[in-house]
Amino acid sequence: MRIALLGGTGDIGEGLALRFARDTDHEILIGSRDPEKARGAVAEYEDELADRGAEADVKGFANEMAADRADIVVLSVPPYYVGDTVEGVADSLDSDTVLVTPAVGMQGDEDGLHYHPPSAGSVTELVAQRAPDEVPVVGAFHNLAADALANLDNELDLDTLIVADDEAAGDTVRTLANEISGLRALEAGPLANAAEVESVTPLVINIAKYNQDMHDVGVKWI
Amino acid sequence: MRIALLGGTGDIGEGLALRFARDTDHEILIGSRDPEKARGAVAEYEDELADRGAEADVKGFANEMAADRADIVVLSVPPYYVGDTVEGVADSLDSDTVLVTPAVGMQGDEDGLHYHPPSAGSVTELVAQRAPDEVPVVGAFHNLAADALANLDNELDLDTLIVADDEAAGDTVRTLANEISGLRALEAGPLANAAEVESVTPLVINIAKYNQDMHDVGVKWI
Repeated sequence: MRIALLGGTGDIGEGLALRFARDTDHEILIGSRDPEKARGAVAEYEDELADRGAEADVKGFANEMAADRADIVVLSVPPYYVGDTVEGVADSLDSDTVLVTPAVGMQGDEDGLHYHPPSAGSVTELVAQRAPDEVPVVGAFHNLAADALANLDNELDLDTLIVADDEAAGDTVRTLANEISGLRALEAGPLANAAEVESVTPLVINIAKYNQDMHDVGVKWI
Repeated sequence: MRIALLGGTGDIGEGLALRFARDTDHEILIGSRDPEKARGAVAEYEDELADRGAEADVKGFANEMAADRADIVVLSVPPYYVGDTVEGVADSLDSDTVLVTPAVGMQGDEDGLHYHPPSAGSVTELVAQRAPDEVPVVGAFHNLAADALANLDNELDLDTLIVADDEAAGDTVRTLANEISGLRALEAGPLANAAEVESVTPLVINIAKYNQDMHDVGVKWI
């Protein structure tokens, strides 16, 4: 399959790109608003992967082009860009493309981070509202620490939760997530259940803040 | 110490009573609106503990009497009774009593359970609003499956998150939680961070619903 990571040059995008490239046989398309920036990130990721002897198939494109070529499109952009990014690539999506959203709305104060969903109820549901009707939307990869993911020396032992209304699309993303070494995908139900999944993200950041030696803390459901 | 479990005759109260009684040296006071019901539960818990060769110090009282005698008062009542229960025992509380709240507001539909906090922001903050000003409030034991806790044959390997504005009270409850075998207490910050902690409870119930063999699923932050 071809997996596009829109906004794949930073944060969660980098970690997913490196893990998908190293652990799966899929073709990875790094998308950015600026295709030059995408190609720069690809060069960095290729160096990082080559250092570890990993063969990788990674290419850089403008977001629209990456989305157009992909079977799975991951919206690894900050939450406040998610809606516009979906609309910007809408013409490149169709019923055969699975749109995946890992973004979470948060607000911080002196106490820590707090879950701050959009009026749609969750970023995941916002994406479903803004995407063309025929495009299946799946929420996944919400609660993974970007640093922990991007450091390939770090062996994962984490879970990620999948929310989907379209069963086949959910299965596709679950299978893909399980291909990342040390990651286990669990189901959390339909998109209507996304808020509780997303709100774990500020919580893990608060746990990292208030406990020693838990900087890159993640979650296992056991 | 003396630990009162108000509403200690059912659900999360039973599990905490059995675990505290078996794993700690504290005196456990089971509270109920009906003291006869409390004493009936005590007889059951004593049988359960005796079957396992555990010596236990458990007594039954009306809620007010249990709260009056206790150093730590756990509000193990359903969320919609929490406010009234706090006000009902307010005269029995003082600055030396730590009030602990594990309750979570939830609403269910065909998709699963959803987090449904009171207007205070969380049940934990509601308790802080309704309790006398001088009584320190601590949120803890939110995300534990009642069945998993109440079955003493089940060896725990779970975390619980502590939220507290009063550092000493938070430390007291953290120490107490760590005395339960297989339970690890982590800090999640002040009471203002309680909503994200509470919202994990509907999430674990959704995970139990949508995944096989995860009936009593719990959480580890790793």
